[in-house]
Amino acid sequence: MIRIALDAMGGDYAPRVEVEGAALALRELPADFTIQLVGRTTDIQGALGAVPDVDRARLKVVEAPEVVGMGEKPLAAIRSKPNSSIAVGFGLQKKSLSDAFISAGNTGAVMAAATLMLRLHPGVQRAAIGTLFPTANQPVLVLDAGANVDCDARELVGFAHLGTVYARDVLGRPDPTVGLLNIGEEDEKGNAVVKEAHLLLRATSGIRYLGNVEGRDIPSGECRGQPLDVVVCDGFVGNVVLKFYESAARVFVSLVKREAPDILQRPEMGNVLKVLDYSTYGGAPLLGVQGVAIICHGSSGARAIKNAVRVARQMVVSHLSQDIGAEFAQGGVVA
Amino acid sequence: MIRIALDAMGGDYAPRVEVEGAALALRELPADFTIQLVGRTTDIQGALGAVPDVDRARLKVVEAPEVVGMGEKPLAAIRSKPNSSIAVGFGLQKKSLSDAFISAGNTGAVMAAATLMLRLHPGVQRAAIGTLFPTANQPVLVLDAGANVDCDARELVGFAHLGTVYARDVLGRPDPTVGLLNIGEEDEKGNAVVKEAHLLLRATSGIRYLGNVEGRDIPSGECRGQPLDVVVCDGFVGNVVLKFYESAARVFVSLVKREAPDILQRPEMGNVLKVLDYSTYGGAPLLGVQGVAIICHGSSGARAIKNAVRVARQMVVSHLSQDIGAEFAQGGVVA
Repeated sequence: MIRIALDAMGGDYAPRVEVEGAALALRELPADFTIQLVGRTTDIQGALGAVPDVDRARLKVVEAPEVVGMGEKPLAAIRSKPNSSIAVGFGLQKKSLSDAFISAGNTGAVMAAATLMLRLHPGVQRAAIGTLFPTANQPVLVLDAGANVDCDARELVGFAHLGTVYARDVLGRPDPTVGLLNIGEEDEKGNAVVKEAHLLLRATSGIRYLGNVEGRDIPSGECRGQPLDVVVCDGFVGNVVLKFYESAARVFVSLVKREAPDILQRPEMGNVLKVLDYSTYGGAPLLGVQGVAIICHGSSGARAIKNAVRVARQMVVSHLSQDIGAEFAQGGVVA
Repeated sequence: MIRIALDAMGGDYAPRVEVEGAALALRELPADFTIQLVGRTTDIQGALGAVPDVDRARLKVVEAPEVVGMGEKPLAAIRSKPNSSIAVGFGLQKKSLSDAFISAGNTGAVMAAATLMLRLHPGVQRAAIGTLFPTANQPVLVLDAGANVDCDARELVGFAHLGTVYARDVLGRPDPTVGLLNIGEEDEKGNAVVKEAHLLLRATSGIRYLGNVEGRDIPSGECRGQPLDVVVCDGFVGNVVLKFYESAARVFVSLVKREAPDILQRPEMGNVLKVLDYSTYGGAPLLGVQGVAIICHGSSGARAIKNAVRVARQMVVSHLSQDIGAEFAQGGVVA
């Protein structure tokens, strides 16, 4: 059985939403996993009491008396609260008592704890947050979405490897394409880091590099006629675009609502709204650590948590972490 | 009479679309301007022959025998083709024979020619491309959208001044707010340049600085409950977000079309599509040069050209260039 730990104290509506998400996941996903709810036992038990039909046989509660607040400084919080739900959750994985950890809590604290406690695979310079962007066709994985504000060219090449393995293992794309986010297709476009990364990526084996891609290629999901699977960028640009997208999708919907509210009631619009809704995609994996870590929005609802469990399960089943370790060990990475 | 020069040879459908756009502008906008169509006279006359009802009394053709191709290197093209429509168009303005220049041609060449021929206002370090992003409420001006891939903190402060004057003069916002695009609100967020710019902007007088804003605040058009008028960023991030947005709007429309094509026929959807359509906003001004320069999409249609004429006219009427000169001369800028 796969064991997936879930931070019951993270997120804006904890522990209610986490407990509801766990119950949904146990009900709707393949029954080959258990969930470890990590947090204050009494709070969790209270929330569990309000949720009917929970498969208690596949649910464990793991006590963690401390909570990291959303506004706390990440590193200080992790160091001063060794019994926080985040630290206890990753601790389970470190001791091989768990296979994955999901949190909708303090993103910086989750990243810090993952890096400190699970450590990076040898050869990985920086862990990156991957996020899926909806397109008219298949979603595109964009990384880094905010873990690293300044990146050098080699780190961007590292993200290309991380994204390639993720797209293969978790998205089921056998030979994923990679684009470098830039402001034009031509070789001479971009800032110094991006220009250098472009040259390095062209010289890198084991990556199906399409070349420079532009902002427009993310929502279209293709570039110069080829499907686009992975887009690499620094965490500043990636984070800006991610938050921009989520907000733009809301604005589209609110514009339609204002002009013609009945349209949103149409059943066919459900598919449109589902594509635009980030909660469909199940949280953002932190890639490069030795293990499985998924970061969810603080405002996640039960459905987003359920989908994060789905993705975590897939990451474990596909041996993503091991495959990333092998990718960086076998010298496919530019040194 | 205001004299607006229009590059008849720029854009993917030149000169047809430019001539149609000019005719539309002459018909629909206030009659206080003339248009100078700059390019190959025979080509322009041919296109004019196909457009009925052109107000020929307010239309001049200015011969420019050379054309800068979309793929040419900007600086080399401007230097080797002194009789290109771009060089001739800016030449008119330099000789005080014209008040504005609009081109849907090679963006880099238009920027290079504007900077070389019109020159920057004293105190302006870099010209910036401003673009309007639709929101559920008023559009937000984002700059720089691609003129400068690497910016230092003082250049970002300069963009804040340029955007403030533009929002006041052209958008009619008497006391515009400015946000710095970042990955979080807190002072310590961002890369080194953005952190320094945040401190400089806080210390700058004459700017109504709201602080750091995030990608989500652009489509929502507000930040922490305040309306947002101007967003400052480097040209790399700005260009990525601009192209991303245009493409996302198309994907949204194509999703609706796929699921429920009849919805797009509904008259109320016209308002939604209009808000999402960049051609509503009439090209992107190049701000900081001594004069008026507007850059349009290569794929602009006649309506986009007409709206660019509308914006150019407003830039002239409001004395934008003079006001920018005064803003940078009067010491409101951090030195």
